[in-house]
Parts: sequence; structure tokens; C-alpha cells
Amino acid sequence: MAGNSFGDLFRISSFGESHGTGIGVVIDGCPAGLAIDTEFIQKQLDRRKPGQSHITTQRKEEDELEILSGVYEGKSTGAPLTLFIKNQDQRPEDYGHLETAYRPSHADFTYQQKYAIRDVRGGGRSSARETAARVMAGAIAQLILQHYGITIQAYVSQVGLIKVNADHTQLDLNSGEENIVRCPDQKIANEMIHLIEEIKKTGDTIGGVVSCVINHVPVGLGEPVFDKLQADFAKAMLSINAAKGFDFGSGFEGLGMKGSEHNDIFESKIDLKGHPSFNTKTNHSGGIQGGISNGETIYFRVAFKPVSTIMQSQDSVDKDGNKVSLEGKGRHDPCVVPRAVPIVEAMAALVLVDHFLRNKTARL
Amino acid sequence: MAGNSFGDLFRISSFGESHGTGIGVVIDGCPAGLAIDTEFIQKQLDRRKPGQSHITTQRKEEDELEILSGVYEGKSTGAPLTLFIKNQDQRPEDYGHLETAYRPSHADFTYQQKYAIRDVRGGGRSSARETAARVMAGAIAQLILQHYGITIQAYVSQVGLIKVNADHTQLDLNSGEENIVRCPDQKIANEMIHLIEEIKKTGDTIGGVVSCVINHVPVGLGEPVFDKLQADFAKAMLSINAAKGFDFGSGFEGLGMKGSEHNDIFESKIDLKGHPSFNTKTNHSGGIQGGISNGETIYFRVAFKPVSTIMQSQDSVDKDGNKVSLEGKGRHDPCVVPRAVPIVEAMAALVLVDHFLRNKTARL
Amino acid sequence: MAGNSFGDLFRISSFGESHGTGIGVVIDGCPAGLAIDTEFIQKQLDRRKPGQSHITTQRKEEDELEILSGVYEGKSTGAPLTLFIKNQDQRPEDYGHLETAYRPSHADFTYQQKYAIRDVRGGGRSSARETAARVMAGAIAQLILQHYGITIQAYVSQVGLIKVNADHTQLDLNSGEENIVRCPDQKIANEMIHLIEEIKKTGDTIGGVVSCVINHVPVGLGEPVFDKLQADFAKAMLSINAAKGFDFGSGFEGLGMKGSEHNDIFESKIDLKGHPSFNTKTNHSGGIQGGISNGETIYFRVAFKPVSTIMQSQDSVDKDGNKVSLEGKGRHDPCVVPRAVPIVEAMAALVLVDHFLRNKTARL
Amino acid sequence: MAGNSFGDLFRISSFGESHGTGIGVVIDGCPAGLAIDTEFIQKQLDRRKPGQSHITTQRKEEDELEILSGVYEGKSTGAPLTLFIKNQDQRPEDYGHLETAYRPSHADFTYQQKYAIRDVRGGGRSSARETAARVMAGAIAQLILQHYGITIQAYVSQVGLIKVNADHTQLDLNSGEENIVRCPDQKIANEMIHLIEEIKKTGDTIGGVVSCVINHVPVGLGEPVFDKLQADFAKAMLSINAAKGFDFGSGFEGLGMKGSEHNDIFESKIDLKGHPSFNTKTNHSGGIQGGISNGETIYFRVAFKPVSTIMQSQDSVDKDGNKVSLEGKGRHDPCVVPRAVPIVEAMAALVLVDHFLRNKTARL
Repeated sequence: MAGNSFGDLFRISSFGESHGTGIGVVIDGCPAGLAIDTEFIQKQLDRRKPGQSHITTQRKEEDELEILSGVYEGKSTGAPLTLFIKNQDQRPEDYGHLETAYRPSHADFTYQQKYAIRDVRGGGRSSARETAARVMAGAIAQLILQHYGITIQAYVSQVGLIKVNADHTQLDLNSGEENIVRCPDQKIANEMIHLIEEIKKTGDTIGGVVSCVINHVPVGLGEPVFDKLQADFAKAMLSINAAKGFDFGSGFEGLGMKGSEHNDIFESKIDLKGHPSFNTKTNHSGGIQGGISNGETIYFRVAFKPVSTIMQSQDSVDKDGNKVSLEGKGRHDPCVVPRAVPIVEAMAALVLVDHFLRNKTARL
Repeated sequence: MAGNSFGDLFRISSFGESHGTGIGVVIDGCPAGLAIDTEFIQKQLDRRKPGQSHITTQRKEEDELEILSGVYEGKSTGAPLTLFIKNQDQRPEDYGHLETAYRPSHADFTYQQKYAIRDVRGGGRSSARETAARVMAGAIAQLILQHYGITIQAYVSQVGLIKVNADHTQLDLNSGEENIVRCPDQKIANEMIHLIEEIKKTGDTIGGVVSCVINHVPVGLGEPVFDKLQADFAKAMLSINAAKGFDFGSGFEGLGMKGSEHNDIFESKIDLKGHPSFNTKTNHSGGIQGGISNGETIYFRVAFKPVSTIMQSQDSVDKDGNKVSLEGKGRHDPCVVPRAVPIVEAMAALVLVDHFLRNKTARL
Repeated sequence: MAGNSFGDLFRISSFGESHGTGIGVVIDGCPAGLAIDTEFIQKQLDRRKPGQSHITTQRKEEDELEILSGVYEGKSTGAPLTLFIKNQDQRPEDYGHLETAYRPSHADFTYQQKYAIRDVRGGGRSSARETAARVMAGAIAQLILQHYGITIQAYVSQVGLIKVNADHTQLDLNSGEENIVRCPDQKIANEMIHLIEEIKKTGDTIGGVVSCVINHVPVGLGEPVFDKLQADFAKAMLSINAAKGFDFGSGFEGLGMKGSEHNDIFESKIDLKGHPSFNTKTNHSGGIQGGISNGETIYFRVAFKPVSTIMQSQDSVDKDGNKVSLEGKGRHDPCVVPRAVPIVEAMAALVLVDHFLRNKTARL
Repeated sequence: MAGNSFGDLFRISSFGESHGTGIGVVIDGCPAGLAIDTEFIQKQLDRRKPGQSHITTQRKEEDELEILSGVYEGKSTGAPLTLFIKNQDQRPEDYGHLETAYRPSHADFTYQQKYAIRDVRGGGRSSARETAARVMAGAIAQLILQHYGITIQAYVSQVGLIKVNADHTQLDLNSGEENIVRCPDQKIANEMIHLIEEIKKTGDTIGGVVSCVINHVPVGLGEPVFDKLQADFAKAMLSINAAKGFDFGSGFEGLGMKGSEHNDIFESKIDLKGHPSFNTKTNHSGGIQGGISNGETIYFRVAFKPVSTIMQSQDSVDKDGNKVSLEGKGRHDPCVVPRAVPIVEAMAALVLVDHFLRNKTARL
């Protein structure tokens, strides 16, 4: 089974190349009756698109949403939804020199070896432009989640070694959108922006971390033993271009804790009718226990490497093994994480909606 | 689709509970003609089984392999392979007190909420005993990989905050099996063992990291854009009980690097017949570029939290919301990572074999 | 993806060979809370088992149900359900002569060519004994359907050229179990039994048709455009050993009708509250329109060829291309259709439950 | 999992409505390096399109192929292939009267009940126009099969009760395209055309049978026990609009045969190097034994009901249960089978390519 589909019940199939006709996605399994808010989808596309600020790539793409199928009188019908954006501002001449050369830490070499053919224009299918398909599909997923009151907010928590020290519970996540680096700690945000500007001047790039916080998730999402909720989040996040790591709850940073410190103690309230409700005092579990959401806040981190395309000269080889020198051309991001924020949110939404639908059949 | 199957072409279906009849796995898609080395499978089970040393649980299970289907005259036939171990040494009385109480940071609460019914005996399906199914199936996968010369070696690289500082390239990974904590740095191993002993004395638990190194992987495994090789590793690892994080290559720890440092420069050799072969000078990519193996060593880390079952008294609530006090009973691991080593290897093998088979159809 | 699993949300994985340890099935996705009526499952196994009457094979198998996982205090828990029967009364000596010979119209030749290895004992995986796994899983599916009031009744409607002329609406389907050929028209049943007795005397075999009638199916089951309800029934039925054809509603026999005769005219009733309910005057659609159940009776036919194993001498070849003469040995059915009745019901139930669960996510 | 995808390794996702933007299909898993012969694909679309002759609907659609992704320099790249045709000649006013009425034996009622919303324009997603997606994808599959020498030829073998009596071995299948009804027996073809003309005059419709013959299939395709080759053909065929039945080999018509007559006796030839090759004297098995192709000709039949849309007045009801009278409007086929021929071929090709790819992993 080829790898361009994601999800079981809310299943998306992504298609398109960086410099082909466009980028699109087919969604099979969107429940009927969903109001398709095209402005919201466009807004998510705009948050991802290049050229938003001076710290992102200057490539200009309007990324204007077209709906090719599945909507009738503004609502989903149960038929496949197809969302599409045309490619524009293509400059294939930027890539002519790449036809036989393998750019370091790109997909050029592996695609050529796997398929024995490679669309050299802008990385073809391996381009991060593909993530626009995820953002469109994720926006549909978010519309469903909004219907059920579930909220997803991602933000930049680290650029290079500059890190937000505050916990997500101490931050006003809505303020993340107020600066161009999408970090809700305004002071740290300024430091991050400054670092990216400095890195950009040298033609270099830098990585970072996107954190994601999800609230109001109902108890019960996740399908043990393999499709645990965290497992599907991990896959979703590591499928994003340039992602290098994932952890949730206490993650890699909680390794100093003992079990007695790490365990989240349950508390309960009993309402007037005698029905109990439950919560945990702490949330090292990150909202997931035994692979299933427990109703607490879900939070996780995604590490992104420094973008491979740099505006510096680099040594490499071509397909025949000859040494070549590559000059950075084209228009690229000095740091990918600000634009990765809506992509992380989109992938998170896709995972959640799929599990939301799957959970509908858990009981007789 | 329920979540007890893993893989597309080499597809396993895990079944069984901690205190039911036994634990088993059906493998559909094992290529015909594989010599089924039952001693090797038993050896892997023995590496996972409880009671191996004084730093693991003292629960005794023989975990004796039975093959229920799919083998004829010692070879796989293309029919489903079913591997099974019976449960023994069950002490359901250890769990009587759990019938209505929710143990902190276990799956009791979430299973009860999701399914409205719960096998309370030893955690039922949520027990780590389920991982025996993964080890059996993973052993079959490893037999296939061995046939193609691919090797997988995992080891403990961190317990609590005690960490192996050496890189995997500087370690003799075979020596990991020489100590009971499965750490190939013997000095650090002793520190780890000492820490676990101390933790055990207090009835507490501690987490850690398992690192995994895979060599001789052919170029071309991985299916962009969603089933990237790292994405499937991430899912596989985060599906293991108690796993909290995953990173590969430079991971979370490489965030201080710039693109110009992080990029892995290609080199080539040209053989006598004029055919080029390629490698990279560095390997921050962790053997995967664009979601596809590039022929370099694949390496990744998996973080595990401290085991939730502690031998201390803890507050909790029962299903009706009443406060209860839980006393640690039963026989549990003070630190899960030594026994997680063969599980990580097994899950890695399952991912690789599946992608190995999938890659057979990449080209006309 | 190997072919031993069936269904999406109610997904079964069948395993086991004719003369191996036993035959089993893992069900992933059975909703939690279902009372597992083991007597009902055993009864279905008994309806399928050999040796029921003088017109079926005299091979004796007790086929005693064992449950290996997934049940707690008599109910399904949401974990995989594993059902198993041990093999008994094996006479491998009956098959020694087949080790290199290819029996005509059996799977010997194709299995050997596909897998380059073949379990020769009783046909191994290709044996109709595998259908016991379907019957066990189908029984679980039927318990779910019973919960929702849906009934499935199959019967023998043709043996050789002897045919029930009455429509299913004119028959008392419950009376099908009253005779050994499972035909609800007692007069035709006697003719069928007589024919089978005559065929058996000559060591020959004969085919037939099983018809299946399903009542009280809710409107809305079926997933266009590929997983139409009839498409999944067709696949299910053609996956049964010896099945040669499937049709539903007017089927092959309605080809003489014009559209104006074939169209099922809608009628409606309006209840006291003003809510309409709908039905059709005729039911040439067979209860399915546009791939979705319309609330009318679903009915279809499945054709079965004469069993390939005959008690006569036949020419054939061995794997090296040498001519051989095969003598019929073992204990086989002169006509497969009476024992196919519970298998058709089981497969129908599996399709329906899967679509029942899938339909739960059709709307927001 | 929603039902708009088909196939495992060569997986297509169909999208689009009758009167929306257009009809398209994404193919995931097309092997890289396939020359994409757009003329061939267009030719297949032309064979399916309306308005080909006076016995088909007069709706005019140019159905001009656009490729939206997956092709580079004329070849497949391993990325998803997207094929698309825009809709034209829409006359939504033809459908205004249908907004609340349920046409007899159409999908109006079931779609409305399942989804609680319905695209009324031309049947929306339930329109047979969707089959254009299958024809495009099937053409890609046929290009792969041609590469391996496999040929698929379907033809009309029955219209109403007029039937080709000759066996497919006695017909020149290439001559099927020489007449507008696509029947290779020219005399019978004339009778069929005459019947359709008469039926058309009365505003009525008639059904028929498409037969399909596949040659040069390698031994070994098919995945027991559920994904037997015939099972997947059956599903594929019954997923086509208006299909009512499927049989292969001796099918429903061979029920008069005894096992001794029906069994296909093996023969062998031994070549100069001593290697045997095998064939069968007869082919009642229809080229498939034990669910796996045996190298003989595969042949099967698909029954189609008379089209539901007739140019006569019919009684029906609307969504509120009120009686309405429907007048036939629009432009529709008096008999669907001539245009079903390329659709049957397309679906057959999709099944075969998928199994061809799946079979690549059968052995170590």
C-alpha cells in the first residue's frame, strides 16, 4: 500500500508536486452535514503559505482554495471532498542545476534510488509544498472538532537553543499568532526572531520545536494496542517534512522523575445527581493513559531540524558519482517552525477526528 | 478499524490478556519458504520474560512458544503463522482489590470509560504482557531481515538521568547483553544497576531510554508522504507500553546545529566497472532522507516513563468516585527499560520487514 | 496485504490448516459489552461440521469451541476475541499419495506454483475446513445482529438441476432445518436428497445453489461507490470454497424484464405524528439501491460447483509433469450445499455487522 | 472506512459528482517508470462516454483527460497519479423536479436516508458518470498489464433475452468493437440493436450481460482465503452501477454437471531442458483454482439490470411521503451494457494489477 493516504475512517489522500499543476487532497469519510467554512480553510492555508513575513521564504503563492467535489449547498454530502490549490510563481529555471546533482540531506538521492526517476522541479513530491494538502484536510477536520468543542493550538516553543521555559498552562496560547515566529512568550519571541534574522544573513538555517496543546478532548479516544492515540500522533508528526522527534506529556524531559512523582493522582467530583466525574491532579500523562484520552489536556512536542536548503556553497555529487559544487538558489525558509505551526495543528486534527469516528463503534 | 493489527503487507494481529488463556499473534503476509527457527524465537521471548534478574519483576512465566498454524516441515507456507504462549503463574488474587479502583497512570480509568467493561485481572489487555506477542512476531521479522543481512541492535542508553555519553559508533553493541541492564558501556551499566537497586528498595520506579541501531538496510525503504520510514518507526515505538518519546538521527539534541553543520555531505566511490556507490560523511539524518532509507545506519531513541505500579501506598478513587488508598501488590519492574530492549528490536523489525515488502512494488 | 483478513471495522483474521493444530479466528473490533453465547456459536459449528447425515462426509470432527481471548465474565471487552477449535480425527495417511500429484480442480497446483511449498495434508490452508473460522466469527456477528433484530436465513434452493420454484416470500424458511438437505420445500428436499444419494453411489458429486434472505435490515447500510452492500456480499460469497456465482434481487434471472417492470415503486405511510415511512411495492432491487440497504428484504443466491474430490479414478500429473492416476480416498461430501448454508449465513453476517458499524459515522 | 477507494497496493480513490466540477481519480501505488499513454486513456474514456451512437444517451460530454499529478516527462514517478475530466453540458434544470421526489429504483431514497442530505443534480455521486473515474484508473492499470502481455477483452453477450450462444473460445473478440452494441457475434449484435431500438421507442429500458475474457495471466495471482481472485472480481463487478450478478467459469450455468465432468484434468509438457509446463484440458474453473490464477483463460459474466430512468410516467413519493408522478426527462441510455464494456474491463484491470503487485511478496 503506497503511503499517500492517512487515517482509517477520516481518510485523506494527498496528491500533487511542487511545480506541477497543483496540490490537492481527497477526503473520504467526512461525515455528511458539515458546514464547509471556506474562509476558515483559506485562513489556515494563509498561515502556512510562503512569504508571510521577512523571516520566511519569499516565494509567493496565492494558494487559493478550490473545491472540486463533495459539497452541496455549502455542506458535506458524505461523498469524497476534494480540495485543490493551483501552483503559481513557478521558476523551474531555479532547479535546472539539480537535474543530476543530489542536494545534501534532501530527498533527491533516495527518491532517485527508490523510483529510478525523479521530478527534479522543486523537489517534486518531496517538497514541503505537499503540506498544503494536509493543511486543507486538517482544516476540515478542525471544523468537525470545533463542532464538538475540541480546540487545538500549536506554537513555537524553541528555535535553535532559545526555548520557552514556561509551561503551556502558564501561557496565553492565543497570543502566539501575534508575532511572526508564532511564540506566545513575546520576550522569547523577539529573541527567536533576532536569531532567525542573524541566521538568514549568513545564508544558513536553524531548527526548533513546535508544541501542541489540545483541550476538551472527550475520554475514550485511542485504539489499543497499536493505534494508541500517542502512537498515531507520533506517526502524524514524524511524517511532516524535517520532523526529527516527538514526545508527549513528561516526554524525554521527565526521565529524572520517579514513579511516585510521575503518577497522576485521580480526583473525583460527584454532582447533585450522584454521578462522579474524574480528573487528575497532575498531568504528566499528557492526557493519554493506556493509549486512550483521559479527558485532561493533551500536549506534545515536535522537533524540526534546520532546513537543508542553505544559501551557501556546498559540496556534493551527481548521479554518476562526480563531485559537484551546489550554490544555494531559490527562495527558502531560514527556519521552518513558524510555518510548521498550522501543519502540526492540521495533522493533530486529522488524528483526532479519525479516532473520534473510530470510537463511535467501541461499545454495543 | 480496531487497533490490534500492525503493518500492511507483513500484518500482525495481536491477541490475549495478562491473565487469560495466553498471549498470541497471527502473522498474515509472511513470505513462504522462511525457515522458522523456533530456538531463536524462544530466545527473544526469554529476553523479554519477567524474572530474568533481581532488577526485573519476579513474576515467573515460562512463556513457552507454541506454533498453532502456518508452518509445514519447518518452513512458512504463505498461510497465516500463529504463535502462542500460555499464561501461567497467575495470581488473580493480587488484583481483587482493583476491581473498582483506578490505579494512577494506568489504563484502568480509560478502558472502563471507553468500553464500559474492563478485565481487571492484571490490567487485562492493557498489560505489558501483551508485548510478548510483538516479540514473537518480531522474531519472525528478524529471521527475514537476517536472510537479507540486516541487523538490529537495541540497548539501554539512559536510566533516570544516568546516560551513556558515547555515540553508538563508539560502542560495542554486542556487549549490551553482557549485563543485566543491557547497556553496552559496562561502567555506566553498573551505575544504572545500582540506581535501579536503590529505587527498588524504596518501592519506587524509574524510567529511561532505549536506543536502537540498524545496519545494512538497503536504500529505498519508506513510502512518502505519510508512511515515511521514521513515521512508522515513531508509531511502532509509541505504541509500546510506557513509551513517551521518539527521535531519530540528530533528534531533539541536534537543535543547536545550523543547516550548514547538520547537512550530511554526499561522497561517492566508483568501482572498476564505473558504477558509483554513495555514502554520507556524517549521519545526522539517521539513515533516512525524505522518508526513505539512504543506506547509512538508522538510529533512534525511545523514552520510557517510570513504571506506574509502585510498591508504595497511593491515593486514588474508585469507579463511583469514592476515595481509596492503593497498596502496591503483585510483582513488578522497578525499571522497564532492560526488558524493553527486545520489544524495541521486535517493533523495529516489524516496521522494516513491512517496508521491505512494500518496496518490492516501487518500480515497474 | 495478505488475504486472510476480512472486514474493516469488524475485522476477522482466520488461521489454521486442515491437519495442523486447529482452526481459529481473531476478531478485532467486536463492540464491548456483547454477551458471548457460546452455545449459539457451538450450534453454528455443529451445523457446519462433517458427519451430520448420510449425505455429508463421514469425517468426524467434534469441533469444540475454545475461547482464547477477549471475554471477561461472559462479555466482550473490546479486546480481540479469539475462537479456536482443535483438529481431531486426522488421517494424514489418506494424503500421502498427494504429496507430488496435483488433484484436478483443487488448489494443489496453484498453491505449489505461488508459494513453492505446500502443506499437502488435506489441502492444508485451502481445505474447506477453514470455513469453520468463518462460522465462529459469523456467529459472533449474528449475536450482534440479533441484538438489533436483524435475521439471516439461508437455505438450499437448488441441487444439480432440481430447483425450488417458490419465491422466498412463499416459503417457511424456518422449516429448512427440518431436513438434511436444508431445503424449506419438503417435496423438493426429498428429490434433492434422492439425487445426492444416487450421485454418492457412483462416487461422483453435484453442485447447487444456496439462497439467503435477510430481514429487518435498517436503511442506510453500504458505502458507495466501491463498498456497495451488494459488492461486499459478492466478495464474501465468492471467497467461499467452491462458490462460482452470486446474484441479488432480480439477478441473472430478471434479464427479460423491462425497466418499467423492474422498477420498484415507492409507497409511503404517514403515522399519527405526521412522520412518513417508506416501502416499495415490489422488491426486484433485493433490498439494496445505490449500494445502500433500503429497508426491504435483502436476498441473494450463491452457486456452488460440484466438489472436486470424487471417489473415482482420475488422470492427472505430478509436479514433475509425470502422468499419474488418482484414486479417490478420504471422506468427502457428495454435495457441498447443505453444509454451505451456515457458511453463507456467517459470511452474510460478517458483511452486515461491518457495514452496521461503518454506518455509525455517516453523519455529523 | 468510507467506500470510495479500491485496491490495496494499486489503490484508487474516486471523487466527483455528475453535475459538479468534474470527475477524478487519484491512484496511489502506480509503479514508477510507466509510460503514460494519454491517447490510450482518452480512447477508453471515449468508449465509455455518452452520445457514441443512437442507442446510447444523447448527453454530450467531451470527457477530456487532464493529468493533475504524478507524471514527469511522460512517465509515472511513484507519486500519486491524478486524472480528471471536467463536467460540461450540464442541464441542472433537468433535475429540479427531483429535489424532493424519490425516483424508483434509484439511489435518491437511500442516499437521503443515510446522509440526510443529497446532491440532487443528476444523482450527484450516485450517477453512473462516476464510472469515468474507474475507466481512467483502469486504463493506467491496463497499461501496466500490457507491459506484461496480459489482455482483457469484454463484450456484450446478452441483451434482454437475446444471447450469444457461442463460447468465448469460438468468437473473434476483437470484432466486438465493430458494432455499436459491442457484441462479437454480428448476427446476434443486429438482433440486440433492433431490440434496443424498439425498447427506446417506448421510452423503456432493458438489461443484459457483459462477458469478460482475460488471457496470458501468470500463474499465482490471488490471495486466499478471503482475497481470492474471483472474490475480488466479484466485488469489483458488483460495485458497478446497475450490476446484479457475477459468475465465473462454469458459473450458474454449470449446475447440471457432475464433479467427474466438471473437473479440469491437468496435462503437462516437458521442454528440452526437462522443465514441465502445465495446462488443463477443459477450463470449467475459469482460470482460477483455490482462489489463484492457474494460467488458463479467466472468464466471467456480469449481469446488468434495465436502467431505472425511463421516459415514461411513473408513480412515486417525495421525502414527506406525498404521492408524486414523475415524468422521464433528461437524456438516458435505453440499455447500459454497450457502455458498460469498458467499465468492466477497467475494473478487471484494477483487480489484476493489484493482485499482480501483491503477488510480488508471496515468497522469500
